[in-house]
Amino acid sequence: MSIRNSRNELEQTAIRIFRQLGTRTILFHQAAAQSLGLFPTDLKSADLLNEWGPMTAGELGKKTGLSTGSVTALIDRLEKAGYVIREKDPNDRRRVIIVPLTESKKQVKQLFSSLSESTANLCRQYTEEELTLIFDFLRKSSSIMEEELERLKQ
Amino acid sequence: MSIRNSRNELEQTAIRIFRQLGTRTILFHQAAAQSLGLFPTDLKSADLLNEWGPMTAGELGKKTGLSTGSVTALIDRLEKAGYVIREKDPNDRRRVIIVPLTESKKQVKQLFSSLSESTANLCRQYTEEELTLIFDFLRKSSSIMEEELERLKQ
Repeated sequence: MSIRNSRNELEQTAIRIFRQLGTRTILFHQAAAQSLGLFPTDLKSADLLNEWGPMTAGELGKKTGLSTGSVTALIDRLEKAGYVIREKDPNDRRRVIIVPLTESKKQVKQLFSSLSESTANLCRQYTEEELTLIFDFLRKSSSIMEEELERLKQ
Repeated sequence: MSIRNSRNELEQTAIRIFRQLGTRTILFHQAAAQSLGLFPTDLKSADLLNEWGPMTAGELGKKTGLSTGSVTALIDRLEKAGYVIREKDPNDRRRVIIVPLTESKKQVKQLFSSLSESTANLCRQYTEEELTLIFDFLRKSSSIMEEELERLKQ
């Protein structure tokens, strides 16, 4: 096989693997959300608040790509289920920010604890040098996904 | 830092990176499905048919973890939008199987073409040996996600 063909095949393999990983990620979170009584994508929208910190409904809408109506409904569901609370921004009392609740993080953590443990076990099969390489690739993949999301929202 | 602490930190990094990649994967597919007029998780459920081939509604329910009612509604939406067709199984005329349509794959491929190109570009920054290592890790991660989904569905 020529070097060019072999590279092409590797790139196709990458796309196929990411597609499979993506499908499983989505199905897993769908089942996890279902078991918590949430809509499929609610859990990850809530996770953005844990990652980025409290923000306004408008900011959450921009991050998730959801319409104003959808993001209001999302916050209503999350607030009702005890995952977030609406609070006045202590730095600007005219703004209402959505604050993630630590308790909910615990509940979600429990749900994900087996997945976290399996991931840690997988890591133990690799050297630190190998993991550094793999994580660098995954961080770049994550950035690509973020850029592509921005593109899609336009 | 002791070797033990450093390993612990690497494992925590792995969990954090997968969490971030997971969030972005879900938000991207949510936006992609929205642009196709589908529910957030419909697109990936349909993708299972492309990956595994035609199957019955019951089999798709098992794969996705959706209830009978939810999977019927899912197939109705996908059929209406032209992504699948219900057909009699040529090997057993009493069974109705859900067949993915090639045209829809093309439409979805267009939507994902920029993501595929960026992924291919990322791969070009790595040697074949490095990619083999990375893909092995990703395949194992995908298997873990599949096992965890099974666990969650029980």
